[in-house]
Amino acid sequence: MGVLSEGITQVLIPVAALIGIGFALLQWILVSKVRVSVGSDDQYGGYKNPLIGGAELENGVDSLEVTIKCAEIQKAISVGATSFLFTQYRYLTIFVGVFGAIIFLFLGSVKGFSTKSEPCTYNIGNLCKPALANAIFSTIAFLLGAFTSVLSGFLGMKIATYANARTTLEARKGVGKAFITAFRSGSVMGFLLAANGLLVLYVSINLFKLYYGDDWEGLYESITGYGLGGSSMALFGRVGGGIYTKAADVGADLVGKVERNIPEDVIADNVGDNVGDIAGMGSDLFGSYAESSCAALFVASISSFGIGHDFTAMSYPLLVSSMGIVVCLITTLFATYLSEIKNVSQIEPSLKRQLLISTVLMTAGIAIVSFFALPSEFTLFNFGANKVVRNWHLFFCVAIGLWAGLVIGYTTEYYTSNAYSPVQDVADSCRTGAATNVIFGLALGYKSVIIPIFAIAIAIYISFSLAAMYGIAVAALGMLSTIATCLAIDAYGPISDNAGGIAEMCGMSHEVRERTDALDAAGNTTAAIGKGFAIGSAALVSLALFGAYVSRAGLETVDVLTPKVFIGLIVGAMLPYWFSAMTMKSVGSAALKMVEEVRRQFNSIPGLMEGTAKPDYATCVKISTDASLKEMIPPGALVLLTPLIAGTFFGVETLAGVLAGSLVSGVQVAISASNTGGAWDNAKKYIEAGASEHAVSLGPKGSDAHKAAVIGDTVGDPLKDTSGPSLNILIKLMAVESLVFAPFFATHGGLIFKLL
Amino acid sequence: MGVLSEGITQVLIPVAALIGIGFALLQWILVSKVRVSVGSDDQYGGYKNPLIGGAELENGVDSLEVTIKCAEIQKAISVGATSFLFTQYRYLTIFVGVFGAIIFLFLGSVKGFSTKSEPCTYNIGNLCKPALANAIFSTIAFLLGAFTSVLSGFLGMKIATYANARTTLEARKGVGKAFITAFRSGSVMGFLLAANGLLVLYVSINLFKLYYGDDWEGLYESITGYGLGGSSMALFGRVGGGIYTKAADVGADLVGKVERNIPEDVIADNVGDNVGDIAGMGSDLFGSYAESSCAALFVASISSFGIGHDFTAMSYPLLVSSMGIVVCLITTLFATYLSEIKNVSQIEPSLKRQLLISTVLMTAGIAIVSFFALPSEFTLFNFGANKVVRNWHLFFCVAIGLWAGLVIGYTTEYYTSNAYSPVQDVADSCRTGAATNVIFGLALGYKSVIIPIFAIAIAIYISFSLAAMYGIAVAALGMLSTIATCLAIDAYGPISDNAGGIAEMCGMSHEVRERTDALDAAGNTTAAIGKGFAIGSAALVSLALFGAYVSRAGLETVDVLTPKVFIGLIVGAMLPYWFSAMTMKSVGSAALKMVEEVRRQFNSIPGLMEGTAKPDYATCVKISTDASLKEMIPPGALVLLTPLIAGTFFGVETLAGVLAGSLVSGVQVAISASNTGGAWDNAKKYIEAGASEHAVSLGPKGSDAHKAAVIGDTVGDPLKDTSGPSLNILIKLMAVESLVFAPFFATHGGLIFKLL
Repeated sequence: MGVLSEGITQVLIPVAALIGIGFALLQWILVSKVRVSVGSDDQYGGYKNPLIGGAELENGVDSLEVTIKCAEIQKAISVGATSFLFTQYRYLTIFVGVFGAIIFLFLGSVKGFSTKSEPCTYNIGNLCKPALANAIFSTIAFLLGAFTSVLSGFLGMKIATYANARTTLEARKGVGKAFITAFRSGSVMGFLLAANGLLVLYVSINLFKLYYGDDWEGLYESITGYGLGGSSMALFGRVGGGIYTKAADVGADLVGKVERNIPEDVIADNVGDNVGDIAGMGSDLFGSYAESSCAALFVASISSFGIGHDFTAMSYPLLVSSMGIVVCLITTLFATYLSEIKNVSQIEPSLKRQLLISTVLMTAGIAIVSFFALPSEFTLFNFGANKVVRNWHLFFCVAIGLWAGLVIGYTTEYYTSNAYSPVQDVADSCRTGAATNVIFGLALGYKSVIIPIFAIAIAIYISFSLAAMYGIAVAALGMLSTIATCLAIDAYGPISDNAGGIAEMCGMSHEVRERTDALDAAGNTTAAIGKGFAIGSAALVSLALFGAYVSRAGLETVDVLTPKVFIGLIVGAMLPYWFSAMTMKSVGSAALKMVEEVRRQFNSIPGLMEGTAKPDYATCVKISTDASLKEMIPPGALVLLTPLIAGTFFGVETLAGVLAGSLVSGVQVAISASNTGGAWDNAKKYIEAGASEHAVSLGPKGSDAHKAAVIGDTVGDPLKDTSGPSLNILIKLMAVESLVFAPFFATHGGLIFKLL
Repeated sequence: MGVLSEGITQVLIPVAALIGIGFALLQWILVSKVRVSVGSDDQYGGYKNPLIGGAELENGVDSLEVTIKCAEIQKAISVGATSFLFTQYRYLTIFVGVFGAIIFLFLGSVKGFSTKSEPCTYNIGNLCKPALANAIFSTIAFLLGAFTSVLSGFLGMKIATYANARTTLEARKGVGKAFITAFRSGSVMGFLLAANGLLVLYVSINLFKLYYGDDWEGLYESITGYGLGGSSMALFGRVGGGIYTKAADVGADLVGKVERNIPEDVIADNVGDNVGDIAGMGSDLFGSYAESSCAALFVASISSFGIGHDFTAMSYPLLVSSMGIVVCLITTLFATYLSEIKNVSQIEPSLKRQLLISTVLMTAGIAIVSFFALPSEFTLFNFGANKVVRNWHLFFCVAIGLWAGLVIGYTTEYYTSNAYSPVQDVADSCRTGAATNVIFGLALGYKSVIIPIFAIAIAIYISFSLAAMYGIAVAALGMLSTIATCLAIDAYGPISDNAGGIAEMCGMSHEVRERTDALDAAGNTTAAIGKGFAIGSAALVSLALFGAYVSRAGLETVDVLTPKVFIGLIVGAMLPYWFSAMTMKSVGSAALKMVEEVRRQFNSIPGLMEGTAKPDYATCVKISTDASLKEMIPPGALVLLTPLIAGTFFGVETLAGVLAGSLVSGVQVAISASNTGGAWDNAKKYIEAGASEHAVSLGPKGSDAHKAAVIGDTVGDPLKDTSGPSLNILIKLMAVESLVFAPFFATHGGLIFKLL
């Protein structure tokens, strides 16, 4: 047994979660203090402070008019995002109901809905709860996961739409103030999500225990439904949100930038950032967090921790996450109190420093948790065998995951920030037109895969060798342990993007616009970093889930040299392409519709071109909404049906091949797509900002090189915000779904081969 | 034993090869008969008929001047291509020497260069030749394979540069005549390659037998060097040729089409088609053919055929290929004698019919070979076990490969021909600019992967289940059995492309240009079909080689659930991206240089713009040559060093993972890249041709939509002609190299893990 007693563990976890929630609320209050002078006015979306700025304005712009416009736009964005999410939730409710029923029926049918207790599989000699109970509790866990995932995304969207106009207004005072506002708002989301995810999981385990008692096999088996619920919501959040945001963005780019030389952002684009990059991202990372916890808990439950009923050791994954909340809290204080951003060139280094600080502190944190919570020696389940492991082995597993995440983050930054040569080369290639820009951008994306893959491979090798599948699962948790900081950095991106869009639409001064542009350029990089983390952790999580699936399906090897596995492998490797084809085509088609609508408005609404009339935002929002809701169904079906079809008709071996194939192929497509898109976006911003001699030679806005850069940016939009990030979910979700349905496939699966 | 005696087998194979060579020569003579009226003149490249057309001209163009220009251009292309290839061969000679030495040293060191005979591994109780002999003969086989590969490419280039201007001249008489000329020339290449490959292999086996006698294990083990030689030359042919052709093409596109509105083709572009699409493609398919034969022979040699010394059954792969030559010969007669092309819309259906006819006839041919050459029941080696197989099982294996090839060919045609909706949709998306064109094109490429992968998966499942790795190898041979027809169809593409370029440069009439354009558009599709075949067969071949490697390395399973294999798998899946990043960047950089040079020429050579002065072809050719020779080294090193490093330092399991990962990931990247590029090219041609109301609404040349289409075409160039097709070689070459070096890795490999 470790040093920590069960009682202390039972206190530490919820306390850490509550501290996280409290800190998030504190940050929210700080954001809401952004100075707004004219009194309350309920007309602006019910906010107490309608953002109407007073005396502290610079530049002599007509302040009242500008700020009223800001508040109006913020309201439009907030209303648009809320309304989209609620529309989406209506569909999701139906999905959750149907899929919950499927889970119940499939898992219940494993033992023919019997209510008799059964002998345990691993804890030999004891009786475990009936399969029907697992079906019921898996369904409940699924519902809880889905709910928490949606909640995470929704809260993130709320704070983001609350913060965007505030960031714009603060930008008038200086880049440091604006940065702090955007970053604080990101922190709110990060801490709420990390703490909520932990708390709900902790409470669920304790409630489930009331029924399961000593049957930990059944308890943690059904808890895996939590991960499935989280990820399935993330799928629709990412895909639906991704299509929404990019339909709007691509449409706006096409009409605005290239054809008419007017500012880009229509309101739908801003709404899209909030529903795609914020709500979708939140659900996605929550899903990863939930899944890696569940995978670790499941493997632990059939190892000596579970069989020996060592609650503290079983809770190791939760304790690591608790420590992560505390570490991120300290890290955030560095950014918000100890260092101040004085000019735009400090933004990116400051965000990078956040990553580094949290990683260093967390390494110590992991060491503490590992030494206090774990026995010095224990055994872990390893595909039928037992593996003897020491506590410092697990320390290394978690730490290697954590540091691999840092390497991925830094590599992503290198390839997507316009401070380094890769993006500058892409910008330079715009000299000879859009074609070379696209060629160089694609090549950059492909190249950016190399280091992350080696980092992931090394992390896998070490954690796999030291502690088998449990090692992989806790390595994934390690990468996600600083999730609050990562999410803060990531959410900072779309908030700044929105702030920039609002500044432009309000007609703020050139100086303010420059500041928000700089914040936004850094935001593109941090968004790419966030995606890098999401993908890296998804790779580890999927592998851990894959291992758990294999254990649960009763396989002892997954041999590539058998036809069943190999065809699964090659078809699995194809799925990311199929999926990307669907999502990219959806964005393209929806963007075309949007272009037609925007053209119609320009031609039919007098004064719109000159900025004297208001565009018809609602119709644009509706086009994006309809497209995303309709178009998210086929890719969603592809992801959700593949494991069911492969498992039911082709059996557990082929499904294992599919999972491995989609994992190793999907990671590459996802990383290259995200980075290519991020690089194009920043190459464009590099030319626009004109911060160096080289950049000036390519610009200014409207030059041929800039037009070529806009084309690259537009192509990159669906790559970086729709296809790329959705692929994380493809690989994770298929794995967790297979894990949940494994008992069914093992019993009733492989119909085709049984018939032949 | 089968019905066919060893004596008859020994006669049939060389006779079939000689028939193929004879038929190729006959076709060449027919092409050379293209009517040219003014007598011989040695000034035009030493050709007897300098192509100076006489009285039969249409349209009243100034015929003599035009035809002299044609001859000049043909000469320039031929000289350029020959000079490039010879420069390339100088480098390759060094490479072949060095790599040959490595093979000898590595394989010789397996048993410490001992000259003692050893007990056989499979043919238990007998003595086999020493490992040193295998090292020597593997090296010799490697040299033979390299030589035959280079010869195949070179002869193809010769006939293609001989035929291009003839096709142009024939186009003045009508589309049917031009088609026949181009297609016949393609056949010359197809038959020469198929027959040469077979003949050299057959002769080598018989010569090696003089030394090896009854030691068939050693004999067929060393013959695998033939495949390695073939594929390593193909690597440089594809990569070097691909960079060459696309540097020129992209450069020409950028300067010519977009910036100056002048015709595209500078001479280097035409040279490039011949060295990349013809010589590179020839080497590539020869490599596939050699490798699948070697893989099948190797597996057979350690199965009952080899151990029982049944020469006819051992020669089954060679007999299938012999039958293929005869079947293709009959098929070609259909195209050249029995049906005539009367208008442009018949071109594509006619080529498709060729595929169908050859596939149907070959199915019967396979049945005949299987029933006469094979015993009705025999055993095949299956990773340590023996599998009982019947002759009709092998018939199914070969036939499923053949038909999977047809499915891949037809699917490719559907996605890349502008006669169907996918390409038309891409063309339509040009309405809103280059960005949507690129998005739709990428989505099309991703989507086009689905059916080929299912076809490959089904072929793998059936052949793997029926006859283990031998089944896969003969399925690959089945797909390649109609190689003569496939290559004819494929080579037809670049020949037509050249013909079109020549027509344009000679200033031929609009009508002639339209005909060559139509030939060329069909050629883009057939080139994509050829690439589809090349990729599909590469997938099967690599899997067969992978299986042979695993057998030779003494592995019995390749379990994804071990850390060594899994890290290999994920890193292997990354390699196609790394490789593509290199090749695309190379094309981009070389194109930039080309653009600068062409701009310089336009600005410094007076009269060039008006067509009254001659451009400085030589400098352009030199830029392409230098770029391709310099830039082919890093990707070549990546492919060749990866197996050596993985095997030596990480051992046979990790290498197995790398091979499986690069196979399942590379196939997807290759197919999507080829088809995306083909689709963009034909979307552009669709708009240019304006054959339908829809196409007219997008055109004409120079419209905004057309400009957007040109950008897509330019982006697609490196995808479809450099990265995509080179990836076949990546996956095949790594597999065959691993196979050849397997004894070394099994004995001395895995240094890092041994140290840890």
